[in-house]
Amino acid sequence: MSAIFHAGISGYRGRMGRAVSQVLDARDDVVVAARIDWGDEADLSLCDVVIDFSTADASLALAQAAAERGGPALVIGSTGFTPEQEAALQQAAERIAIVKSGNFSLGVNILIGLVQHAAQRLDAQDWDIEVAEAHHRRKIDAPSGTALMLGEAAAEGRFSDLADLRLKPYDGITGERPVGKIGFSSIRAGGVIGEHTVMFASEDEVLTLSHSAIDRSLFAKGAVAAAAWVRTRRPGLYDMQDVLGFRQA
Amino acid sequence: MSAIFHAGISGYRGRMGRAVSQVLDARDDVVVAARIDWGDEADLSLCDVVIDFSTADASLALAQAAAERGGPALVIGSTGFTPEQEAALQQAAERIAIVKSGNFSLGVNILIGLVQHAAQRLDAQDWDIEVAEAHHRRKIDAPSGTALMLGEAAAEGRFSDLADLRLKPYDGITGERPVGKIGFSSIRAGGVIGEHTVMFASEDEVLTLSHSAIDRSLFAKGAVAAAAWVRTRRPGLYDMQDVLGFRQA
Amino acid sequence: MSAIFHAGISGYRGRMGRAVSQVLDARDDVVVAARIDWGDEADLSLCDVVIDFSTADASLALAQAAAERGGPALVIGSTGFTPEQEAALQQAAERIAIVKSGNFSLGVNILIGLVQHAAQRLDAQDWDIEVAEAHHRRKIDAPSGTALMLGEAAAEGRFSDLADLRLKPYDGITGERPVGKIGFSSIRAGGVIGEHTVMFASEDEVLTLSHSAIDRSLFAKGAVAAAAWVRTRRPGLYDMQDVLGFRQA
Amino acid sequence: MSAIFHAGISGYRGRMGRAVSQVLDARDDVVVAARIDWGDEADLSLCDVVIDFSTADASLALAQAAAERGGPALVIGSTGFTPEQEAALQQAAERIAIVKSGNFSLGVNILIGLVQHAAQRLDAQDWDIEVAEAHHRRKIDAPSGTALMLGEAAAEGRFSDLADLRLKPYDGITGERPVGKIGFSSIRAGGVIGEHTVMFASEDEVLTLSHSAIDRSLFAKGAVAAAAWVRTRRPGLYDMQDVLGFRQA
Repeated sequence: MSAIFHAGISGYRGRMGRAVSQVLDARDDVVVAARIDWGDEADLSLCDVVIDFSTADASLALAQAAAERGGPALVIGSTGFTPEQEAALQQAAERIAIVKSGNFSLGVNILIGLVQHAAQRLDAQDWDIEVAEAHHRRKIDAPSGTALMLGEAAAEGRFSDLADLRLKPYDGITGERPVGKIGFSSIRAGGVIGEHTVMFASEDEVLTLSHSAIDRSLFAKGAVAAAAWVRTRRPGLYDMQDVLGFRQA
Repeated sequence: MSAIFHAGISGYRGRMGRAVSQVLDARDDVVVAARIDWGDEADLSLCDVVIDFSTADASLALAQAAAERGGPALVIGSTGFTPEQEAALQQAAERIAIVKSGNFSLGVNILIGLVQHAAQRLDAQDWDIEVAEAHHRRKIDAPSGTALMLGEAAAEGRFSDLADLRLKPYDGITGERPVGKIGFSSIRAGGVIGEHTVMFASEDEVLTLSHSAIDRSLFAKGAVAAAAWVRTRRPGLYDMQDVLGFRQA
Repeated sequence: MSAIFHAGISGYRGRMGRAVSQVLDARDDVVVAARIDWGDEADLSLCDVVIDFSTADASLALAQAAAERGGPALVIGSTGFTPEQEAALQQAAERIAIVKSGNFSLGVNILIGLVQHAAQRLDAQDWDIEVAEAHHRRKIDAPSGTALMLGEAAAEGRFSDLADLRLKPYDGITGERPVGKIGFSSIRAGGVIGEHTVMFASEDEVLTLSHSAIDRSLFAKGAVAAAAWVRTRRPGLYDMQDVLGFRQA
Repeated sequence: MSAIFHAGISGYRGRMGRAVSQVLDARDDVVVAARIDWGDEADLSLCDVVIDFSTADASLALAQAAAERGGPALVIGSTGFTPEQEAALQQAAERIAIVKSGNFSLGVNILIGLVQHAAQRLDAQDWDIEVAEAHHRRKIDAPSGTALMLGEAAAEGRFSDLADLRLKPYDGITGERPVGKIGFSSIRAGGVIGEHTVMFASEDEVLTLSHSAIDRSLFAKGAVAAAAWVRTRRPGLYDMQDVLGFRQA
């Protein structure tokens, strides 16, 4: 159905890079044309698209190198970009197509839409919003990037910025919960792959929207699907809502 | 803000009738003008709207009496109508405004929309749908009417009829789960007020959309909100999606 | 079966005091002999037992007054005692019988035993423990007293003090989860009555032990059951594990 | 720490057999001495212990062959034995040591103990018990063997047989829930590895004890741990409660 394309893997020694490698190896329609790690000299001309799970610095360098040559397209799963780096990425995306996302799973990206929709319909005076997430013991930051994406979707549904609504974790004497804010809580335990829950609660009822990952390969598969999509796009900065066709025109 | 209106309660001796009575008593803008039970002679002319949690038979008789006189409007929460009774209700609704619903909570009615939306986006080949519900030990039927409404929303999202997709509870040697079907499971335990969950599961991830009732007054409050809405509508058969403004024109 | 007894209610204007009052009124075997609030002159001689949900200060004053007269017995549900106040209570309990508990529900007190048991059997190297709780928006402190009781039970199961194992909520760059510690997270939302979960997670599996309150009267009923039990006990400081007969001799 | 032992794998071409094979390969202290499948001629003399996930028929034949030669010890994970086959296994176990279990995970086996303990303390008049389970779409029977084990533990806690307490899934007009019975419900969806929940619910509160598998290798690891344990035992029919040291003498 789809022609064969040539993919590079950036950050290929990392956990996500290895997972992407396995997914690519299992597909007939992809040739892995380059494996890149920090400091490597990589021949970008061999690739139609590069899937990159590295660091903010390495991703930006890759994007600028690709922009200079007018390709390949990129799928970026790195996190932790500063506002300046975000701006530089945006600039690179004037010359190449980039999909950048904090979470490549179909389920989470559907959840984002549902959360925004529910937040829009549930009055902030009556309905409190809480985002909860659980991950394995090796995760070093909290809340997860995906939890923040979900919080942003909820804030957008209320025509607000998450920065204005975000609560710190409840700890000690907190006083009553402020109206209209969005709470966050995190659990770190064992090998939990990734669970995210957005709870909307009024005095009388609770609506809970959750996502749970069963298999670690989930995110790698989603990134590869993004790669298959982005390699034929015009320049621009896209996210998974675009890849999945969820963006309303 | 809103003018005072006169409400009747049909089935007022039942559990829901008593709950509706309490909610009405707590509001300033409603006068309870009639309390009706099966066999009672009731003066419908005193009422702008009647809230009815009785039986399919009693509700239909009430609707036909109201249609004959050209009012009052009705909110019907009775369940178990035969197709013939449904048709007769539809006919009554040509002359009076009727809101009929299996669940009057805001949260469940939002959930219905989210379920339809998710079902539409999640391919039936890859994503199995399961509806689970839990209720108190006094509930005498399974699955709950609300579980079936959620199943219908999921089926609609897949442009199908629930009748074609609905699975019986798994029990014994079932064989592998058929693709594209919708499963149902029920729990009956203690005083559980009402929990509903719709699970969408692929090989790699699970999306779960749930509703939980905290307080039994929830449904009575929703029925009263429907009454305030319907009393000024044109004749027609409405549901809570209309009351809440969720119906796309 | 049981003789009539005379109960006092301390803190009777508070939310728990009113709930206790309702439960007592619904029982045939109790006469409410005194309603006491801070600063009231109360005739303790009328009571076989006083149920007290007030403040640490008021509870201690009540216990000392009762100890001086040699009765009545007390059920104390107040929280926030300083170590000095705890010691003073212990001293009062040399002369009167006192049940003091942070949670009077049967389910939570069974959960405490299960958590201790599981913690003892699940090796700290492999199994992380997380305590999560959710309560209504009016709760002003976190984590809940019951969450801390559950954490203490888990720590005891590992022959440790919670003070040595307790983690602050995960927030920001936390690094990997330390081995053997106990995490806590809190959610505040709408009218949630009270949910507590203790999760034990290894790399490969998760064991989750949870309690959920359906009805606010739950805790008042438990306190009244404690009152019926304690009024015939010898002096001493008891808790719900004693009342329920769970304390191993 | 432990001497090297020689293990056979029966049913080695099946999903569990392959998982056991991987776990054995990753250990230093085991040599895989035989891979057996239905109809194979296998040299049992090479094995200290055989891990068997095959069929009831094949397992019984294996046990009888081993009993005849006085070894090796067996770990049996097959299910679906008839009462006659159970009796024949019991007879074989007079000459060899056999661990037979429906679930080899540590967490599930702890859960079994907790369920029995809770069932014993929660009065059947007030507390309803429901066992719920969810598994992947390829599972062909319901409820799961582990769900039935949990139901048996609950029944034992109430000094009863599950056969007397077990309810069929709720479906249609069921009437009110009978007091003292144990309900079962099953979900089949996507790639869900395995979830089990035992719910105890009164009018006012719910206690929920759950297990969730994160990684499919969980059960294979447990079976290998059982093999390491059983190879030095006296003849007898054991289960995981014995292996884990949970059986009270």
